[in-house]
Order: sequence, then structure tokens, then C-alpha cells
Amino acid sequence: MYYTDKKLQFPVRVEKPNPVFARALQQAIGGVEGEIRVALQYFFQAWGARGPTKYRDMLLNTATEELAHIEMLATAVALNLENAPLSMQEEVSADPIGGGVLNGMNFRHILSTGLAALPENANGIPFCASHVYASGNLAADMMANVTAESSGRVLAVRLYNMTDDPGMKDMLSFLIARDTMHQQQWLAAVEDMGGLQASLPIPNSFPQTEEQEGFSYAFVNCLVDGVEPPEGRWSKGTSIDGKGEFASVVAEPLGGEPVLAPPRPESGSQVEQLK
Amino acid sequence: MYYTDKKLQFPVRVEKPNPVFARALQQAIGGVEGEIRVALQYFFQAWGARGPTKYRDMLLNTATEELAHIEMLATAVALNLENAPLSMQEEVSADPIGGGVLNGMNFRHILSTGLAALPENANGIPFCASHVYASGNLAADMMANVTAESSGRVLAVRLYNMTDDPGMKDMLSFLIARDTMHQQQWLAAVEDMGGLQASLPIPNSFPQTEEQEGFSYAFVNCLVDGVEPPEGRWSKGTSIDGKGEFASVVAEPLGGEPVLAPPRPESGSQVEQLK
Amino acid sequence: MYYTDKKLQFPVRVEKPNPVFARALQQAIGGVEGEIRVALQYFFQAWGARGPTKYRDMLLNTATEELAHIEMLATAVALNLENAPLSMQEEVSADPIGGGVLNGMNFRHILSTGLAALPENANGIPFCASHVYASGNLAADMMANVTAESSGRVLAVRLYNMTDDPGMKDMLSFLIARDTMHQQQWLAAVEDMGGLQASLPIPNSFPQTEEQEGFSYAFVNCLVDGVEPPEGRWSKGTSIDGKGEFASVVAEPLGGEPVLAPPRPESGSQVEQLK
Amino acid sequence: MYYTDKKLQFPVRVEKPNPVFARALQQAIGGVEGEIRVALQYFFQAWGARGPTKYRDMLLNTATEELAHIEMLATAVALNLENAPLSMQEEVSADPIGGGVLNGMNFRHILSTGLAALPENANGIPFCASHVYASGNLAADMMANVTAESSGRVLAVRLYNMTDDPGMKDMLSFLIARDTMHQQQWLAAVEDMGGLQASLPIPNSFPQTEEQEGFSYAFVNCLVDGVEPPEGRWSKGTSIDGKGEFASVVAEPLGGEPVLAPPRPESGSQVEQLK
Amino acid sequence: MYYTDKKLQFPVRVEKPNPVFARALQQAIGGVEGEIRVALQYFFQAWGARGPTKYRDMLLNTATEELAHIEMLATAVALNLENAPLSMQEEVSADPIGGGVLNGMNFRHILSTGLAALPENANGIPFCASHVYASGNLAADMMANVTAESSGRVLAVRLYNMTDDPGMKDMLSFLIARDTMHQQQWLAAVEDMGGLQASLPIPNSFPQTEEQEGFSYAFVNCLVDGVEPPEGRWSKGTSIDGKGEFASVVAEPLGGEPVLAPPRPESGSQVEQLK
Amino acid sequence: MYYTDKKLQFPVRVEKPNPVFARALQQAIGGVEGEIRVALQYFFQAWGARGPTKYRDMLLNTATEELAHIEMLATAVALNLENAPLSMQEEVSADPIGGGVLNGMNFRHILSTGLAALPENANGIPFCASHVYASGNLAADMMANVTAESSGRVLAVRLYNMTDDPGMKDMLSFLIARDTMHQQQWLAAVEDMGGLQASLPIPNSFPQTEEQEGFSYAFVNCLVDGVEPPEGRWSKGTSIDGKGEFASVVAEPLGGEPVLAPPRPESGSQVEQLK
Repeated sequence: MYYTDKKLQFPVRVEKPNPVFARALQQAIGGVEGEIRVALQYFFQAWGARGPTKYRDMLLNTATEELAHIEMLATAVALNLENAPLSMQEEVSADPIGGGVLNGMNFRHILSTGLAALPENANGIPFCASHVYASGNLAADMMANVTAESSGRVLAVRLYNMTDDPGMKDMLSFLIARDTMHQQQWLAAVEDMGGLQASLPIPNSFPQTEEQEGFSYAFVNCLVDGVEPPEGRWSKGTSIDGKGEFASVVAEPLGGEPVLAPPRPESGSQVEQLK
Repeated sequence: MYYTDKKLQFPVRVEKPNPVFARALQQAIGGVEGEIRVALQYFFQAWGARGPTKYRDMLLNTATEELAHIEMLATAVALNLENAPLSMQEEVSADPIGGGVLNGMNFRHILSTGLAALPENANGIPFCASHVYASGNLAADMMANVTAESSGRVLAVRLYNMTDDPGMKDMLSFLIARDTMHQQQWLAAVEDMGGLQASLPIPNSFPQTEEQEGFSYAFVNCLVDGVEPPEGRWSKGTSIDGKGEFASVVAEPLGGEPVLAPPRPESGSQVEQLK
Repeated sequence: MYYTDKKLQFPVRVEKPNPVFARALQQAIGGVEGEIRVALQYFFQAWGARGPTKYRDMLLNTATEELAHIEMLATAVALNLENAPLSMQEEVSADPIGGGVLNGMNFRHILSTGLAALPENANGIPFCASHVYASGNLAADMMANVTAESSGRVLAVRLYNMTDDPGMKDMLSFLIARDTMHQQQWLAAVEDMGGLQASLPIPNSFPQTEEQEGFSYAFVNCLVDGVEPPEGRWSKGTSIDGKGEFASVVAEPLGGEPVLAPPRPESGSQVEQLK
Repeated sequence: MYYTDKKLQFPVRVEKPNPVFARALQQAIGGVEGEIRVALQYFFQAWGARGPTKYRDMLLNTATEELAHIEMLATAVALNLENAPLSMQEEVSADPIGGGVLNGMNFRHILSTGLAALPENANGIPFCASHVYASGNLAADMMANVTAESSGRVLAVRLYNMTDDPGMKDMLSFLIARDTMHQQQWLAAVEDMGGLQASLPIPNSFPQTEEQEGFSYAFVNCLVDGVEPPEGRWSKGTSIDGKGEFASVVAEPLGGEPVLAPPRPESGSQVEQLK
Repeated sequence: MYYTDKKLQFPVRVEKPNPVFARALQQAIGGVEGEIRVALQYFFQAWGARGPTKYRDMLLNTATEELAHIEMLATAVALNLENAPLSMQEEVSADPIGGGVLNGMNFRHILSTGLAALPENANGIPFCASHVYASGNLAADMMANVTAESSGRVLAVRLYNMTDDPGMKDMLSFLIARDTMHQQQWLAAVEDMGGLQASLPIPNSFPQTEEQEGFSYAFVNCLVDGVEPPEGRWSKGTSIDGKGEFASVVAEPLGGEPVLAPPRPESGSQVEQLK
Repeated sequence: MYYTDKKLQFPVRVEKPNPVFARALQQAIGGVEGEIRVALQYFFQAWGARGPTKYRDMLLNTATEELAHIEMLATAVALNLENAPLSMQEEVSADPIGGGVLNGMNFRHILSTGLAALPENANGIPFCASHVYASGNLAADMMANVTAESSGRVLAVRLYNMTDDPGMKDMLSFLIARDTMHQQQWLAAVEDMGGLQASLPIPNSFPQTEEQEGFSYAFVNCLVDGVEPPEGRWSKGTSIDGKGEFASVVAEPLGGEPVLAPPRPESGSQVEQLK
């Protein structure tokens, strides 16, 4: 069960409302790098967690925290919209420099919400829950969470660089700090489970003897003749999981051309295909 | 530019076609854990890569390889569909045990493709390119790629466990091996750039002095009074990036209740909201 | 069956074409508050109507009318686009105030339709038929229809306030009037079926003795200790359906912590989850 | 901010796990009639609420409660999946009656989550946040909420009728009761604001003198000659808002055929269109 | 404006209701090959038509006819659902052969519509209006329409082959005939505009002298060395538009490797990319 | 299998980067008229091709070529973004004419990719693989491909007209030429199979004696009394396939009003529907 105290986790203050920045902030609410995604992702990972309960509890905690982040951002969007132009006339009367403000807005902020946030990204794409990764494999999920917090922090930094409103910079510096911690936290969970090397390859419960072992540590070059393959840590030395040696090999087809049966007569093809 | 030799990277053989397994295989083609996703993801990361070109080249190589994996799986779907029932009558005449085969199929395999693969997942959801993560930050992208290959290998293992067709098991054991390598490869790229610790927090180009440092290594417990917080590697000790000390803190609101202005008269609200 | 006379239900006149307003109008065509949605919603409710045929007939009538509304709006979009800039050069040569016009446009109006309407919303999101609510329960559908006409009229009012083109204001004042009637009409249907109170709770065919009656008229406060619950008509007095007494209660968990079985060995988890 | 106690609002018990019923339950999680939708809808209405704060507070409370409902249903899905078949072999060895179980499952329950819930509907369609209605008009939002709880209760009743598992029937009887209350609650909020009649037409802040009043209470018959219009409460008598008289009128076009300008030469049309 | 007579264009009769065939029929309603798509496509082409009005009028006519086809199919779905199982118990009591019926259904037919049609395809994917092609170029649109009617007729044929219900076969034989005509009709429109050869390349208003003419009639072989290119009508002889000679050429890169600038410092990259 | 040489098929040069044109170019990458669509469409047609292999080989070749087109466009987007404004401050300091640049951008170019391309259209809608048409009927697929290349060439022409950057005009004139050829190529394949007339009606494997032949060549007028039907090639003369005579007929309903059974008691309807 869940409870609220109706207060914000961190103060949200907008000194100079900017309805175009409101559009940009939407990416952090409903974008794939945003907070609805992490909230739902951590919730579904927690609700489906099988195995030791401490990881479930940790996920549930942080999912609950993320709700407060959506709330902060939704408040920030509403505050940035408070003086937004609502009509073409207001717009035309504006000065040339500000003249494009209406054009730069998410029109649904005017037409669909009455100047409030939407569960959408900066281009007005609604959040789609297919982005909630909860695989039932704890290590895969932790990597998905590090990814979410990495792209989330990259986004928050870009928003921070985009604005010079002190209130917005403050709020974003808090969210950036939380993203720092959450990157740490999911990696710490991997360490808690025995460390990255032991976790690999994910899932580590599948016996590697059943995979085609000749291809497990080979960097395959799909290059036409005469083009040099890229060299790096991935093409030589012991593998990251310590279980193999990297090698660089040239791609070549082990199978022939695929052969499918002709179409069946009742399957709606052309007669020319049946010949 | 790209070239083909029309051949399969690894032989695709189906001994006993199973149209329901064809549905399951679709998850590896058009699912979020699937091959269209990684192919497009690595291509877009490569085409937008800024900085050292060796990472771009590596991405381009593996993107190109992934095309061959979609091709193998599409072939496997078509081969599994070759004896599929096309009508309710065929179905009724089948024996009781097999009687549910038609019901368990993706109907578009009959109705929309004439017994061939679709760029969809196991439930018939078309692949959506919002799942292509290409952030412009190389470390964030590498984490996204490890995630993709982790959930991809989990999926391939589950498909391997689902079938007892020797041809299909063979093909999947090859794809599992490639997923092993690709997990390694993206982590090797992180090591090549200086290692995971140096990469954190992602993006590492943002000065941590500008984040709210008091919250950068704090595990926040969003629990009501009397509930014990989960303890683990994340709640004490040096942080994973070596730049802080983990601490467990109780969540509390630093902001008050949010206050929005009343609706503007021309914004389509109810008069009761304007009072 | 359906027929047309090729004429508009109400005149559509644009005195001063405005391609940015064309973008805004799209919300009334393909937005969730728009006309494609109500047309399809009323059609599917009619085509699936079970029970007295008069409701079916009424739905079919109004569905057919809504087609004329899409037609009016599509015409309005095309007329607003007639002088739109088609190139960056035209744009640069424009005066500073108008200079943002191209930037504010839906680019598909130029690139995909040759200056005509799209079945999309103001942000270019294609209409998705998941918004067609047709539940098979007539009262639930009438509430869905009142909702559609309410958000539709809110939208039309906002568009009316956004423009000062007399032709557009005229057309919108007609659509606003139709939305007034349609709100009335669906509520009248509820009255025709016996009134709102008799309809509740929806569906009224389920015996309330089978629900957990202690929770049927309780306002649950999910607040942490010390926060005051919101008081209002919902927290005391006879319920709206006349079948209970409202009460305000404090949320508390009646269930314990959920317990799931550990992962199964063949299900692709980590070995650490299996311990 | 939000907090959790990790416990379920109501006990979730499954006596005989049924993986096909797990698929059905998904509709109540990620379907348009489901709990993710209402949780996000009430949250976004609350976070964007302008005007008297008591409505905001009420919305925030119930949004928070709905999280607990998603949690209950996600737990129910996981428990129903605990003995699910994971392979074609298990399936074939099953008895004929149960033989279709695997075919009837959501394959992502096996392939993507390791036997846990997804934020999807019963057909595997991911939840899309375009279904979050938060218009900025409180009356329109209350109607949207009554709609959500009506279709939600219809769904819960159908799920109740679909199962004979006593634990599932118990849980659903609780959710049905909560839907009863929530229908009441949103109608009570309308009463609290002055009653339904006073709220109409929504938005009631737009002066009706500016709409085309001749069409505000007219039921328009879009029927070809000789077909009888449907009679009912909507075609005669005082309107529901008490502000007009219903009348039934025959549809006729007030506008002529629409006339668009020919295509512009640089707009990519055929030359035959330019003549 | 549009009108209805409430009757079906062709009788819809179901002798033996089959709820699994109801699922299959959905593809013809809400699938990409289905009737909602063509109805909306022809409407939007008509409403945006610029140039001679006869093509607009023809499009409007056929769009209006397509509404009657959706209506027929929606009726067919409802009739096929009339004896559908509503619960797991009914199912278990069924005989083994029919035992999989519930599993093979679209669960939303039970849970969301009360046994009626949905604007979705056979897998439950809602219709998405991005499939409405209306380019503003009449010839491109005619080709899109031929495509829609071709895949539509292929689908109808497959549905015809799937069922042995005489009523359903009758209805489908009517829809197949209409698809035959509609393929003809759109090709006749091309002929009416001067014929296919004159229409090419689409758009024919762009001066071919401005395209890179060396590549306008060249079949490019993207094959690695030693693989034979496919020979056919496309690789030699006069081109179909009579304006060139086909030739088969080997693919080769005319551009070098792409070079992008390094990331900008404030753009959220890793420091390793900035070096 | 696939291979790359890392080079561009045609040089991509941007003389004056224009971040708003970068938005427009996205339509050619991820729009329904764009290159991801054709690449995947031709690949899936090839991988599922049944019948003569030369068509499969041709499809595979051109699919492979299309990858190089996505690559060119992605490079063009990145180059157009190189001087893009990243913050509101930069924007304000710009001159009035250029002042709207930031507002006109796809914000995800800044926030999500660090100034690189996305697999999205010009409005930021991610590419959806439901647009991949691969029907298993070769003629239907060829028509779909002509459609794709027609709308693709219309789009490329509009982009060409939108820009005055010589590098961009060059690149687009190459892509326009390739679209010319690809229109030819798919029509040549139809000719190779025996010609358009012989291919009709698609699918030509279904015996026309089983369709309702009275409707196979009839243009149905859905007009109310007194409105003149549109005359043209489609309403008289021999049909395009040479198998019938066109005729113009007045629409009339051959079926009556549809009759559905009343709702079943356990199906969640209102009691008023059950009477």
C-alpha cells in the first residue's frame, strides 16, 4: 500500500515561466529517459520479484521515490506555463524575439490540459509501457536500471544546460544527484549478488556448455574485403567475465541460402508463385 | 554501404514444424528484447557517433551482424509455419491434443503474411522504434547495449528451454553464444574508455559540484514509520564509483505543498474553479 | 448503409489562412477529444448494441452526424494551409513577426499531404482506435459519451478563444452548440433508461451483496499520520445512489507482504535468485 | 511525496493457479479500463489541479489508493502463473482438456517476465498514457473518472464471472466495491461543486450566447427519406440542464460543397491536378 | 454530410457461431488490410483533394460505401460471438475438441465489449490512423488504394478459405467482389488521368533533369564479389515509363566515410568522447 | 548475411547547417514514406518469399541498398544539427529572424541524441513496424512497393523544394533518382510475372466464379437522391483487367437491419438491456 503527505520532495520554483521549457521538461516526465518509466519499471520489477526479498524491498522503495520526481516535474511544467499565450492574437502582439513562443509550445498544454503537464515526451508522444523492463532476471533488470538512470542523468544535464532559471537549475541539480545515486545503487545490487564478473553471462543459470562455444568470445567483422576491422579491448585479451579469450574473426556464412516451400494453393498467393 | 551474399550466418533447420513455436520466436524478432531492436539501435548509435571513430566502427560491424540474426529467425518462423492449419475445418479434424494449434497461432501468420514472419513480438505487437536507444553518450549507450543483450540472452534461453526440436535448439545455441559475446563486447568498450568506475556517474562530463551533493550517495527510504529499510551493499561502504560513502536516510519532504495559480478565464475551466 | 450529398453541414470559411492554427485544429480531428474518436465510438456502440433498439438507432444517427464534423474540420485545415510557406527560403524572406510560421507548423502538412488535413492530433500523433469505448454496457457507454462531448466542448472553446478569424469562430460556435446537445443527449438516454440513480452502480446487474460491502461507500484516506483528509460531499451523507452512507476511513493494509515462489530453474533467472 | 508499508490493501489468494486467467487479469492492470490508467489519470489531474485545493487533495488520495490496486493485481497474475507450462513438451504431456493452456497464455509471461505481470492488457498491448484524461476542467475530469470506474467495474464483474477460484472471487469482490465507491465519489464531487445541472454544459464558463443556439438542444436525424427517427427523452421535453427544449430536426446541409484551391506547383502533385 | 438507412449493404448470416473466427474477422475491421483503414483513407484523400473534382467525388462515394463494409463485419463478429464461453468453468465442461475455444478468443470480446466487435486487428492491436495514406498526389494515392484493395482481397480470400459457414462464405464472396471492383476503379482513375506510363515517375511534376539521371534506371546490385545478380525485366530493356533503358550495375560507394564533429562540451557526452 | 564498407553510397554535404531542416529530414528516415520502412518491407518480403527465387533475390538486393539510404539521411541530420542552439539563452541572443530556430526543432535532437538522427518522423513519432507490408502475395507486395516509392519520391521532391543548401539538393536529387528506378523496378517485376492485366484481380489464384460476380465491376454510388454520380473511366467501358464491363449502379441495401441477441445475464450489461 501507498501513502502521501501531499508535499514535494524538493522545492520547485520557477522565477521566469517559460512555456517552451515546459515542453522540454516533458521529456523527463513521459520520455523513455523519464520518470514515469522508472517508477513503473521499478514497481513491476518489485511486484514480480522472485528470490531474496531484500532486492524486492529496495526496488519498491525507489519506485515509490520516483513518484515524487514525476510530481516535481509535473509541478515545474505547470509553473512554467502560467503566463503562456493562449491565442494567436496575444502572440502577434508580442515582440519579435518572443514572437515564436506559441509556435514552440506543445499545443496540448493549451488545448488539452489547461496549462498543466501531460504524461508525454517533449514531442507530445504519450508514454508507452512497453518501455517497462522487468525480465524476472535480477541482473538483467539491474543493467536495465543503470541504463535508465544513465540516460535519465544525461537528459537532466541537458535540461540543466538549457535553462538559466535559478529555480529550475536547483530542481534539476537535485534530480541529477538522485540519478547519480540510483546508478550506484543498481550497480551495488549487482555487487551484493556477487559482482559483475560472477553475474556474466546473463542469465548465469544457463550452462555455457550448451551454447556454441566457438562463438562466445569472438568479435565478428562484417566487413567487405580490404576494410580494416576496429581493434580494441574487445578483440584481444581475456574476456571481461574471465571465462574466455577475445578473438577477432571474419564473418562468413555457415548456412546456405534459405529454402522455403512454395506457397500453398489456398493461401492467397499469385498463380505465378505456385508454378 | 551494405552488401549481402544471400546466405545464412548459421544453418536454420526445423525438424518438426510447430506453428505455435513460430509465434514464440516472433518475440526474438520484433520484441523489445529482439533483433530488430539491436540492429537499429547499433546502427543509429554508429550513424550518430561523435568522438573516437573506433567505437563507431565497432558498432557498425555488430549492427550489420544483427541483420543476419533477424534473417535467421525470420527463416525459422517461416519453416515452423509450413504445415500450419489454414482453416477451422482442418483444425476440427485434428486430434484432440493438437486441437488447439490454430487457436494458439498468431492469426496474422495466416491472414497477413501467407505463413511467414512479421516484424512483431509474440503477441503480435509491431516493433516500435522508440526502443532504439542512442543517446549521444557512449557510456550510456554501452549500458543500454549490455541491457539489450542481457534481456536478449534471457529470451533466447527461454526459447531454447521451450522447444525440443534439435534444429531449433542448434540455432538458438548459436544466438545465445553471440549474446554472450555481445555482453562482453560492450563492457569491453567501457573498459577501453577507462573502465566503469571512471565512467561514472554517466555523463562524467558534468561537474559533480553542481549537483545537490548531499543526495548523491544516499539511499532514500520511502517507508512509513516502523517499517525496516532494506540493508545491502547500497546502504553502506564506499560508493561503486569510489567518490562517496553510501548512507541510508529517511525520506522527508523538503518542499511544501505545490501551489498553482487559479485557471485563467479563457482556458475552458468550470466557473467553480475560478472563484 | 450510408449515403452522402457532398455538402458541408455548416459553412466553413477562413478569412485569413493561418497554418499554425491548422496545426491546432488537428486536435479536434485526431485528438482524443476529437471527432474521429466520437464517430467511431458511436458507430461501434451502435453496431454492438444489444437490448432495446432505440438506443442503437440514436447512436447510429449521431455517429453519422459526426462524420460531417470531421469533414468540416478537415476542410478548415486545408483552407488554413493555403498560403503556407513551403520552403526555408520563403520563410527567411518573411517579416520577423511572421518569421516563426514554418517552425510552428505540422511538417507533415507540407511533406505528407500537400497542404491538407491528417487523422492526427495537434502534435502529429495519429489517432489510435484504443480510444473507442464501447463496453456493451449502455450506461457505461453513455458516461463515456458525456466525457467525450465534455472534453470535446472544452477543446472547441479553447480553439474558439485561440483564433480571431470570423469564419473559424462561426464554425466553432456551431460545433460548440452540437457538443452542448450531445452532452444533453447522452444524459437524456440515461434518464430514458430510468435515471442516473437507478443506473448506479454501473453495471447495475451485478448483485451488490456479492461485493465487499464494507468498502462500497467508504472514502479511503491514503495519508501519512498527521495529514488532514479532504472533506466534502464524498465523505459524509447519503450516497449519490441512495443505497449507502458515505464514511471517511483511514487506509490500512488488510493483506500482508506478498509472497511469490522462487524462480523455476528453467526460467532464465540468475542462480543467486534460486538459492 | 509517497511512502509504502510493503503490504497489500486486501489479501490476494489463488487456490488453483490458472495461467490463462492470468492473461485475463492483465486487462485490469494495463487495459484502458484498468488500474494503471486510473492511477495516472488521478495523479495528473491532481498535479495539474487549479482552483479549490480540496478536489486536488481528494484526487491525490485516490490516485495513491489505486497504486495498491495495481499491486494486488500484479500479485494475482504472478500467483496464477506459478505452475504454468514453460515448454511445448510439458504441454504435450498434459491431458487433452488442459492441453490448450500454453496456447491460451500471454507468451510474454514466459518469455519476457519469468512468470510475472506486465503493464499490458489481456491481448498484450502495452498501456499507452494517451488514456490519461486530465483536461484542466474539473467537471469534464469527473465525468472521465465516472467513465473509468464504470468500465472498470464492468470489467471486474466480468472477471468475477469468469473464475471460480474463491481467492480470486474475494479479491475481485473487494475491487468491485471500491469501484462502486469511486463512481459515487466523482459524482459527489460534481454535487459538491453545485450539482450536475449547474455544471452543464461543460465547460460552464463559456457564454452560451456565443454558441449557435439554434442547434444547442436539437436532436439531428441523419436518416434518408422515409426512415423513422428514434424517439426518446432526447427528442422532446425540457433539456437535462433545464436551459432549453429538446426538438428533433432533420439533418440538412447549411454549407455547399467545399472548394479548395488547386495544388501549388512546388507541392509534389501530378501535373494533371494542376490543369 | 452523411445519412443512413440503418440497413446492411448485403445480408450477414452466421449459421454456426464461432468465437475464434470472430477473432479472425477482426483483421478485416481493424487490420492494416481492413475496412476502417480504407474508409478513412478515401475520406481523407477526398477531403484534401486539390484539382479536378471528379476524383474527389469518386473517392467520397467509395469512402461512404466502405462504412457499410465495416458495419457488415462488425455485425458478423457479434453474431459469431453469441454462444461464446464466458467463464473458465463453461470451458472445462466442454468436450476436448472444442476445449480450446476460450483460449483462442480475443479476451476483450468478453471483457471489454460484452460480445461485440472492436476497432482492432486479429491480434487485438487497435487501428492506428498512421495507415491512412493521403499524399496530395493523386497518382500516389491511387497506387496506395490499389495496394489497400489488393491486400484487402488477399485477406478476404484467406478468411473465405478459413471458414465453412455458408453465411460467412456468402458475405465474404460479396466483399471479395467489391475488392475486385475497387482494384479496377483506382487503376481506371489512373487511366482517366492519362495512363500509368504518363503518370510515371510519380510525382510527374518534378523535372527529371534535376534528378541524378545516371541512377534513374539502374538496378543496383548490393552483392559481395562472386554472387550473381538476379536477372529479369528490371535489368534490361526499355523502362516501364518508356523514358530510359534499364541497366544492371554493381553497387559502389561514391561517398567516403562520414565525418561528424566531436560532441559539444555542454551536450552530455562522456569526457572520453571530447578528447 | 550482410557486410559493410563503412562508406556512403553518395556524398552527404551540408553547406549551411539548419536544425529545422534536420527535423524535416526525419520524415524521410522514420516517416511512413521513409527509408526504414522500405528497408524492412523489402527484407521481410524477401525473407518470407515463396515461389521463384529471382524475386526474392531482387528484393534482398534492394532492401540492402535502402540501408545505405537511411545511413545517408542520418548523416545529413547530424550535419544539419552541428550548430544547433542548445539553450534558451543562446536562442535569445540570436537575431529576430533566426529567433525561432530552437522552437522549430525536434527537442529530442538536443535532449535524447546529442545532435544526431532518430528513427522517428518529422513530428517525432517513432517508426512503427506495422507499416511493413509483406503479404505473401507477390503482386500485392509489388503494388505496396510502388506505393512506398511513390510517396517516397513525393516526399523527397518536397524536401528538395524546401531547402536551398546545394549539398542537400545534391543528395536529394540522388535519392529522387533511386525512387524513380524503384518505381520502375517493382512494375517491371509485375511485367516479368506476366503483366498487370494478368495479375488482376489480386490474388489471381482465387476463382472469380466464387465471388458475387454481379458486383465485381460495378461502381456503387452512395449518393442521396438527386445528386449526380461522378462519371469517368471507372463507370463505363471494358474493365482494366479485360474481364468485365464497368457499370454505374445506385447503392441499395440488400440486407435488413441487423438483429443481435439481447445481452447475456452474466455479461455485465445494465438490467434495462436485459428486459
